Amino acid sequence: MTSLSVELASRLGAAGLEPAYVEGVARATLAEDLAGGVDVTSAATVPEEQISVADYVARADGVLAGLLVAEVVMWVASDGTTEFSPVSRDGDSVTRDDVLAVVRGRTRDLLTAERSSLNLLCHLSGVASLTARWVAEVKGTRAAVRDTRKTTSGLRALEKYAVRCGGGENHRMSLSDAALVKDNHVIAAGGVAEAFLAVRAQFPGLPVEVEVDELSELSEALDAGADLVLLDNMDVNTMRAAVSLTAGRARLEASGGLSLANARAVASTGVDYLAVGALTHSAPVLDIALDLRDV
Amino acid sequence: MTSLSVELASRLGAAGLEPAYVEGVARATLAEDLAGGVDVTSAATVPEEQISVADYVARADGVLAGLLVAEVVMWVASDGTTEFSPVSRDGDSVTRDDVLAVVRGRTRDLLTAERSSLNLLCHLSGVASLTARWVAEVKGTRAAVRDTRKTTSGLRALEKYAVRCGGGENHRMSLSDAALVKDNHVIAAGGVAEAFLAVRAQFPGLPVEVEVDELSELSEALDAGADLVLLDNMDVNTMRAAVSLTAGRARLEASGGLSLANARAVASTGVDYLAVGALTHSAPVLDIALDLRDV
Amino acid sequence: MTSLSVELASRLGAAGLEPAYVEGVARATLAEDLAGGVDVTSAATVPEEQISVADYVARADGVLAGLLVAEVVMWVASDGTTEFSPVSRDGDSVTRDDVLAVVRGRTRDLLTAERSSLNLLCHLSGVASLTARWVAEVKGTRAAVRDTRKTTSGLRALEKYAVRCGGGENHRMSLSDAALVKDNHVIAAGGVAEAFLAVRAQFPGLPVEVEVDELSELSEALDAGADLVLLDNMDVNTMRAAVSLTAGRARLEASGGLSLANARAVASTGVDYLAVGALTHSAPVLDIALDLRDV
Amino acid sequence: MTSLSVELASRLGAAGLEPAYVEGVARATLAEDLAGGVDVTSAATVPEEQISVADYVARADGVLAGLLVAEVVMWVASDGTTEFSPVSRDGDSVTRDDVLAVVRGRTRDLLTAERSSLNLLCHLSGVASLTARWVAEVKGTRAAVRDTRKTTSGLRALEKYAVRCGGGENHRMSLSDAALVKDNHVIAAGGVAEAFLAVRAQFPGLPVEVEVDELSELSEALDAGADLVLLDNMDVNTMRAAVSLTAGRARLEASGGLSLANARAVASTGVDYLAVGALTHSAPVLDIALDLRDV
Amino acid sequence: MTSLSVELASRLGAAGLEPAYVEGVARATLAEDLAGGVDVTSAATVPEEQISVADYVARADGVLAGLLVAEVVMWVASDGTTEFSPVSRDGDSVTRDDVLAVVRGRTRDLLTAERSSLNLLCHLSGVASLTARWVAEVKGTRAAVRDTRKTTSGLRALEKYAVRCGGGENHRMSLSDAALVKDNHVIAAGGVAEAFLAVRAQFPGLPVEVEVDELSELSEALDAGADLVLLDNMDVNTMRAAVSLTAGRARLEASGGLSLANARAVASTGVDYLAVGALTHSAPVLDIALDLRDV
Amino acid sequence: MTSLSVELASRLGAAGLEPAYVEGVARATLAEDLAGGVDVTSAATVPEEQISVADYVARADGVLAGLLVAEVVMWVASDGTTEFSPVSRDGDSVTRDDVLAVVRGRTRDLLTAERSSLNLLCHLSGVASLTARWVAEVKGTRAAVRDTRKTTSGLRALEKYAVRCGGGENHRMSLSDAALVKDNHVIAAGGVAEAFLAVRAQFPGLPVEVEVDELSELSEALDAGADLVLLDNMDVNTMRAAVSLTAGRARLEASGGLSLANARAVASTGVDYLAVGALTHSAPVLDIALDLRDV
Repeated sequence: MTSLSVELASRLGAAGLEPAYVEGVARATLAEDLAGGVDVTSAATVPEEQISVADYVARADGVLAGLLVAEVVMWVASDGTTEFSPVSRDGDSVTRDDVLAVVRGRTRDLLTAERSSLNLLCHLSGVASLTARWVAEVKGTRAAVRDTRKTTSGLRALEKYAVRCGGGENHRMSLSDAALVKDNHVIAAGGVAEAFLAVRAQFPGLPVEVEVDELSELSEALDAGADLVLLDNMDVNTMRAAVSLTAGRARLEASGGLSLANARAVASTGVDYLAVGALTHSAPVLDIALDLRDV
Repeated sequence: MTSLSVELASRLGAAGLEPAYVEGVARATLAEDLAGGVDVTSAATVPEEQISVADYVARADGVLAGLLVAEVVMWVASDGTTEFSPVSRDGDSVTRDDVLAVVRGRTRDLLTAERSSLNLLCHLSGVASLTARWVAEVKGTRAAVRDTRKTTSGLRALEKYAVRCGGGENHRMSLSDAALVKDNHVIAAGGVAEAFLAVRAQFPGLPVEVEVDELSELSEALDAGADLVLLDNMDVNTMRAAVSLTAGRARLEASGGLSLANARAVASTGVDYLAVGALTHSAPVLDIALDLRDV
Repeated sequence: MTSLSVELASRLGAAGLEPAYVEGVARATLAEDLAGGVDVTSAATVPEEQISVADYVARADGVLAGLLVAEVVMWVASDGTTEFSPVSRDGDSVTRDDVLAVVRGRTRDLLTAERSSLNLLCHLSGVASLTARWVAEVKGTRAAVRDTRKTTSGLRALEKYAVRCGGGENHRMSLSDAALVKDNHVIAAGGVAEAFLAVRAQFPGLPVEVEVDELSELSEALDAGADLVLLDNMDVNTMRAAVSLTAGRARLEASGGLSLANARAVASTGVDYLAVGALTHSAPVLDIALDLRDV
Repeated sequence: MTSLSVELASRLGAAGLEPAYVEGVARATLAEDLAGGVDVTSAATVPEEQISVADYVARADGVLAGLLVAEVVMWVASDGTTEFSPVSRDGDSVTRDDVLAVVRGRTRDLLTAERSSLNLLCHLSGVASLTARWVAEVKGTRAAVRDTRKTTSGLRALEKYAVRCGGGENHRMSLSDAALVKDNHVIAAGGVAEAFLAVRAQFPGLPVEVEVDELSELSEALDAGADLVLLDNMDVNTMRAAVSLTAGRARLEASGGLSLANARAVASTGVDYLAVGALTHSAPVLDIALDLRDV
Repeated sequence: MTSLSVELASRLGAAGLEPAYVEGVARATLAEDLAGGVDVTSAATVPEEQISVADYVARADGVLAGLLVAEVVMWVASDGTTEFSPVSRDGDSVTRDDVLAVVRGRTRDLLTAERSSLNLLCHLSGVASLTARWVAEVKGTRAAVRDTRKTTSGLRALEKYAVRCGGGENHRMSLSDAALVKDNHVIAAGGVAEAFLAVRAQFPGLPVEVEVDELSELSEALDAGADLVLLDNMDVNTMRAAVSLTAGRARLEASGGLSLANARAVASTGVDYLAVGALTHSAPVLDIALDLRDV
Repeated sequence: MTSLSVELASRLGAAGLEPAYVEGVARATLAEDLAGGVDVTSAATVPEEQISVADYVARADGVLAGLLVAEVVMWVASDGTTEFSPVSRDGDSVTRDDVLAVVRGRTRDLLTAERSSLNLLCHLSGVASLTARWVAEVKGTRAAVRDTRKTTSGLRALEKYAVRCGGGENHRMSLSDAALVKDNHVIAAGGVAEAFLAVRAQFPGLPVEVEVDELSELSEALDAGADLVLLDNMDVNTMRAAVSLTAGRARLEASGGLSLANARAVASTGVDYLAVGALTHSAPVLDIALDLRDV
């Protein structure tokens, strides 16, 4: 259950976001910014009954993500009394000076929720915008851009949503919903095939990806039956050889040493995915502001 | 109370971090990565009793922040059974390939906690490293570099700690521990002086900063008795005039339109602070890895 | 404190149900059925402002229990905006096609709460109905029908309430509010009397019941001063002898091997109680439906 | 995160049960039975250091489900100090007097956890056993047996697991992970097709099932593109006609008026599923006991 | 469930204190004193492994209450590693310089828990000591001394326990476990009898006490069937008349204007109870210290 | 975040009280008094819609503290529907029969919240009143009156607020925000200076106070650089010598053996503070009542 309206909650649900989770993030963000107290500046200067209209305005070009989250923050901060009218939608490309949404409510609520809503909106839009740049780089190849588990504490589901808004795809959500066999697992299990089969045996229903550093390991993984292989830190030539060797028997994911500069070259080798940690751990914000209109 | 050792908790306390808060962040981060389940890959391939040694290694140059937090993550994930031996300390400048800490414990625990500890460590070190670059830029001027409330949901106290590790100073922690009078408050209160005095009257003990856009507003704020004024989006010449006008009656903080490229020029105007949101909202990670040693 | 109205809460209290507990069960039930999201079918098809009237209707004969709980579910799901007009009351005998209550509120709320309210109402009425059949069987004897600790996780207090609605009595609520000395305790303590006296000594104020398998143990328990004895798995003749032997010095409770087929014979031996686990662990639901009226 | 061992947690995960959820149910069940206090009988009579061995023994024939849950209860009640050695496994057919598992630990822990573990184990095995009877009835037809949302508050995921142990399949888990368009939704939306398309439009990724009462509605649903249709309260002849009419364009699910007596006839009509609420709401327990061995 | 030992928990239970509640109070008290951090003084000066022995010593004469609570605080603060050997028991009369208990454990744990354990122990012993003085005053009369709902936030159950330790009796625990009809209820209901009967009708099982200011009201209450009447602010002569008038038909409780100086006179009127708010709201502490022994 | 109005929350904040904390205390106090149920007497006798006006009236002379807290209790109990009009303010001296505040709201809410609000208000005013007596005693000397950590579990921040209302000052809030080196720390560290320096080294930013029993220890502490020294259980002559010896190099705090009778003599020695545990642990309540007005 959630205190959001069914309308808002169902729009979240349709976007693949659990309403109770988003509401929880919104409440925690506001609570951190209030620290058990009140917005002292607004309390001292703004009359309780004053109403304002304000615009969320893009200050730079990019791709929007998190407008839904900003709406939840406004809802929570004002007990649903603020009208939030979206102009753009998550996933839209926006241009500097675009009005993204218009809000109308008690001035105090708008000022109190301003920073919390923007911190989430600007960060998520930053993630979406960076993702979109990667997606544009690899356009025309068979490769998709995927995120990783290198996310911000507490915000993983939202950041993965932002990646989708930017045109990217999601890798596994957690350590428990899919396996990724890395070198340490291989060493512990006594070989690539042994590790792969051990996971299959113990968790029959789960997806299993195998990480390999060399072509010989790739062969071993393919022979064991892996159908998703992560190529770790390979150069472009080796990746191209990996694609040939695999010959469609498994999907391949490039990881390590990727940058916007080499993204296209990597994607052109024929791999299926580029795994890009920077999407979530190093995206600069998209600058967005909340401008109160003069009365 | 906390389940950390008094030793670890007191090192956190001496660093200005509340142990219960850091432990909470560590638990939430691990929980998000486990999603109510287990690390299926390690569970299937790594024997329960296997012990490993691993090194936290810098993959790039920068300033360290969050090694204490990584230690808390390891403690929590292993119920205190992992030995964590720091080599560097938060605030240290580190160089690519430096070993930052050595851990010894159950292999499964190390693998399970690897990503959670690195996500926090790399982000916080990214914040500290970016802060250090700003601090270096303004070295020799009277200006200090300060953060803002543009922080990541749930991580504010840690990010502000990282700013300190990088040589920066902290602005207010929340909406309730200090007032910052902005234009909307001025409009609502009927003038700069009116707004300033309203806050003083209602919250006698709190610090009050006043944001001004023009020199005339600055005069008004100074006349009202403000001793901390935020100069919003002023160019360098105007800031220099503001410093002259103020003549030491208040401290001045530059905000808006700041970049590493113009930081030194701004700092040279004689202002006391540069308020830099990018320190916390747009810092790329410092790349750090956890390498398991071969047996 | 609770978010229920004082009116509703006091009716719960008068029925021996703690309002905060029932509200908690209602919230948990709804939350499990919503799973952090929304009722997608209703959200997509039913207008937000639509109002409906619906009837809770019995689809079979039985004894009602939990109409109060259904009311709480409706209250919680609709923030108190649904009118709930009971026609029958918990403890009433109802007949197929009887209207038990009429509700009027937002259609979406009714549909969202339908299954949660029915799951609790049908189960509790099932318990009451089965209890009533046992009570009818032993009518005219001195024996009362009692429940056991064989209840459903999380619902014990409600199931024991349903037993009362069906005319039964309640045995102890938990391991800590009364003692029941079984064979393992006897063995550990070195004898029936030793066990009985050990409990008396350590917990002077608590009721103590002693379980015995044979008449010799019964004598020992009576000599030790037990005033409540559980006769475990005895046949009817032995129970009758136990009643003679006891001669009113203690109350006797039959347990084990009881069924509706032999209930009367057991009750006729003169025992005071029949302990029937099936009341709570194996009662089939009483079929009740929520029918929305055509507009 | 969970306090269970990785071993136990990964067995739960492999069975499709979230470890943190099962641990939560176990803790709540024990807490309800202790009511904030202690097991007074054991505390008074059993020495703290005494160790016992005990057997979980079937008292009737059936299908096992929840032995994993009983193991979690024992783990939680004894902080992992009790050895739990399963003999059978969830999903096994068991016969009266079969030993299902052997436990060894502090006698007090065994006695304290006895009822909580049995309440869950007997109920879940009851669900599995009843499911197995339905599955046996329809063997040889194309129909599978499915559960419904008519589950016990707080235990839905476990009961659905028990249905799988008995050879059944699971319907949707909640109101939010799939849509089921019923008559009230049809009325509100203005027709079967309108309702179906409204859900598709608002929640593009979700499965949508349509409930129909008559063949004309079935046609309408098929024309709208439904690929899963619930036939509500149809007689066998009508169901057979529905199968012909559908001609493989959608899967069909029979619901309402089903019993073990008519299950085979219904399954023989060619429908794909039988939806049986009784599996979870009216299954009598499978009788299982915990017998302490004599020393 | 609780993390206390069964031994300690069962001693609490035998004293009428719910172990989980007392453990909660102990944890909250320690947490408030640590404020999310550590005992900085001990952390800096006392080696982690140092062990000490310390004595709880009375610094004044009085009646002990809360030694069990102090033991819980020590248990919680040291994860059960501190040995706590009681010398006296709750309810004992103690004399200045008496050793009440001896503890042995890590010095840091003892120092960290010292203040929390003493704050509770000294306050509860203060309540018991004051109660004992009242009880001594009325010795030989038929009157018992009772507490009221004038208790300290969060500590009601413990303070009522302390009253019992001092020889007093407990009045109702909360607004919901018994009714007390006061003048405002009488006015609202339209008379003493009306109010009394309204409560009886709506909450059949609950005890009902009626507060009266004059003898005429007493008659009305008795005629309505009240069997417990509170005489509010009556002088001694009027109370004596009330006793005559009642003639054993109901129990009488004196309230208001009571002091140690007039306690005996009031008790000698023949009333059954003296209701004394000061027992819990104004008792000075009994001075008790924790003295670490020299090594 | 809090459910209080911004107005009320900001008055709390201006008084140095965290709104979320005070709201939490209010909710816990009410919940304890309702015990999961309802106010049965009011529910049975007072119509739901009845409105009353009531006065908080002083029944004795003293200093007010906690009127703000009473207002929060009323707010919480009535969901903000009760009008609370303060006549006096925390810190005011009040006289018997003074009306302190007027409330208007649903009669049931007033009756339900009466005891909870008074329990907090009377206790906190008792603390303030006792503090004021100590402050009056030492008037004209240089000494201030300070509280200690001898506070009531859960109420520390409120009691320290009450001390400020009475004109006193606050010592440290917890074990972690300041150090107080006592004899056990001195023994463990090997000397006064060693202990002082150990704390300084490990927690550079924290205040450190050193407790001394004799003048020789005082010299040692001063030489080590202590600037705050607690003189434990010294007689007046020794304290005077301590003041001379210190000669302004450090502030001095008298502790132990203090009473209203000797307060002035102690204060006249020239010490800076008197540390008085009794302010918070032994203050009798200030008697205040809530009188409903006749209609």
